[in-house]
Amino acid sequence: MNFFEIVGARYSHKERFLPNPVPLADLEQIAKTGIAAPSGANRQTVQLIILPDREGVLNAISALTPYHSGLATAPAAIAVFTDTTLTASSEPFNFEKEDYSAAVENMLLAATALDYASLWLDHPYFDADTANKASKLMGVPDSFKLWAILPVGKPDGEGSRREKLPYEARVSYCKYVDNSTANG
Amino acid sequence: MNFFEIVGARYSHKERFLPNPVPLADLEQIAKTGIAAPSGANRQTVQLIILPDREGVLNAISALTPYHSGLATAPAAIAVFTDTTLTASSEPFNFEKEDYSAAVENMLLAATALDYASLWLDHPYFDADTANKASKLMGVPDSFKLWAILPVGKPDGEGSRREKLPYEARVSYCKYVDNSTANG
Repeated sequence: MNFFEIVGARYSHKERFLPNPVPLADLEQIAKTGIAAPSGANRQTVQLIILPDREGVLNAISALTPYHSGLATAPAAIAVFTDTTLTASSEPFNFEKEDYSAAVENMLLAATALDYASLWLDHPYFDADTANKASKLMGVPDSFKLWAILPVGKPDGEGSRREKLPYEARVSYCKYVDNSTANG
Repeated sequence: MNFFEIVGARYSHKERFLPNPVPLADLEQIAKTGIAAPSGANRQTVQLIILPDREGVLNAISALTPYHSGLATAPAAIAVFTDTTLTASSEPFNFEKEDYSAAVENMLLAATALDYASLWLDHPYFDADTANKASKLMGVPDSFKLWAILPVGKPDGEGSRREKLPYEARVSYCKYVDNSTANG
């Protein structure tokens, strides 16, 4: 697939994965794209932890959210943190969300490029207790903030896709034109 | 370039651009990757305005920040907004930053794939007055928040690159290992 085909093929895989292991070299190639993303003021706040198999850490982390069949079945995952000691504390100069989001997007595309499915799984870690427990399992300092865990693997069947608004409802030329009622 | 080469070739071009026009089809292809990015709860908050040449709007917008030689010379640009009427108001369920950041990262990679340089130019628009003036020039509703404008074009010479931390300082396996003092 070329770049534009990869962008078109990426989707949020919320369902089960097949148990086929993911070669460590593939996970490392995905992680390299994450840290190659731009970061605000080049502070490079993003820290990644590769969970290369289910043994130990990934099993324990997914046990925190047993309802999530994607994480429960993924053969591997990559956890995405920011090192808050590197961030500017004041808005709008705290770029943690921008930094981690750009890193995640690169990795979702990289996983797609390597013919895996993945997911930007953030909502379980909005709960401070779950985030703390997962962080402790990965042994990170208290100053690290866990934003998301990306399961990586071969999807078990076709994952569902959500509908997208049409181009003309989201893109204008020179001056905004309200095409929000355009149909897809 | 394949996907991984594109990720490696992307850089933040802060210097001047050549005046060569960018074909509209290329700008549209870039914009399509922006709106193909994932969005929190599929709310698709990102709105784009393509500024396909310098006439009128882009000239007027770059006149707001005459110190920025990149925007002052770019033959085209894409402005990135979120429609705040589509966002959840409460944290952590307001995904505007995540949404716009993923869209920007897709577009920076897309510009690179098409052999253009670009930049995640956000800081001028942290100033509310500048953001308001630029927004008015593009005729967007008051509910649209301007996050960044991406200049797009052929770079005028080799742009500078910032140094990146080495892989082992940013990626661990299963458990965090502090390699923050590793050298690049």
